Amino acid sequence: MQSEGLKLILSGPSGSGKGTIVKELIKEENFVVSISATTRKPRVGEEHGKHYFFKTTEEFEEMIAKEELLEYANFCNNYYGTPKAFINETIKSGKDIILEIEVQGAMQAKSAYPDAILIFIMPPTFEELQSRLIGRGTESNDVIEARLNRAREELLAFKEYDYIVINDNLEDAVTDIKQIVQAEKLRSYRYKSYIEQMLSN
Amino acid sequence: MQSEGLKLILSGPSGSGKGTIVKELIKEENFVVSISATTRKPRVGEEHGKHYFFKTTEEFEEMIAKEELLEYANFCNNYYGTPKAFINETIKSGKDIILEIEVQGAMQAKSAYPDAILIFIMPPTFEELQSRLIGRGTESNDVIEARLNRAREELLAFKEYDYIVINDNLEDAVTDIKQIVQAEKLRSYRYKSYIEQMLSN
Repeated sequence: MQSEGLKLILSGPSGSGKGTIVKELIKEENFVVSISATTRKPRVGEEHGKHYFFKTTEEFEEMIAKEELLEYANFCNNYYGTPKAFINETIKSGKDIILEIEVQGAMQAKSAYPDAILIFIMPPTFEELQSRLIGRGTESNDVIEARLNRAREELLAFKEYDYIVINDNLEDAVTDIKQIVQAEKLRSYRYKSYIEQMLSN
Repeated sequence: MQSEGLKLILSGPSGSGKGTIVKELIKEENFVVSISATTRKPRVGEEHGKHYFFKTTEEFEEMIAKEELLEYANFCNNYYGTPKAFINETIKSGKDIILEIEVQGAMQAKSAYPDAILIFIMPPTFEELQSRLIGRGTESNDVIEARLNRAREELLAFKEYDYIVINDNLEDAVTDIKQIVQAEKLRSYRYKSYIEQMLSN
């Protein structure tokens, strides 16, 4: 049955390893990662339409006005946002789109796309999260403390998600997500036209 | 994470092959098939507590009165029903229970167990269902016609189910159900105590 791809929204606290999981998933051709639009200047090696859709501030604000963005935010005087068009084209082609969004953006995305599948990536324990953040050795204690507090808050949002994937082991976490995708493709609402056609013959 | 098993309700029209699927599933030790209670006499080889729970009419009516049955019906002056106790013991042990119930019983079961997972087994096409029913060669045309009409009605109930599994190929259908089970074990509501404990440390 050829049908629309799924919209997968992945969130998880810093240190949950969601970036690595996404990199693993998109090795399979049915997964496409959402491309953000931004007004910041391209860095060396970054390509338009691959890493970002690079926009002028005027273009970006026009996208906002036309409601062409699923969600957007402004960091350090640059806009970042998720264009709906790319998501819609991807799912129409039958591929599954992955949106890596933080908790608040995920809630916005869910209200725009009620059929999106929300997956929360978790560290196995809070201590593990702590040691992963410290392990990077790149952040000050204050930054780590702030991130842990934020992680604690974000973890409380788990109830708003459809699924929890505990990232104890990368391979298992990737398998979990693939199984969620397989199961979600068997949801009854996706079979409406198939069954109606079957019965009309 | 040790937690309760799932309650899987499998329905599907006669000829959908759900019986064969159940036989395949219970080869895995995490699946247990629900055992019915009945007042009919045991046939040769049938064991109490394995094929059925054999009850006197008085015992059965006491189970009805005490609301110990998930659903029950009377065929040819014999009661048949699904005891809740066996279901509850099974899921408490962490195993997943399979209930093979027809559409109407499945709706009753869903209202008793809102967290039950409803899976509808479908033939790949209506023609295939027809040829499977005729292929048995054991039924008259009238019986086949009546079953097809009933199948048509039952198929319309697909919307009430969580998932659709098309039984085109036995192995694929069994894999689909296993993937549904794996995904359902990742549902966020199942992680409530896990996450609360994680954050309380």
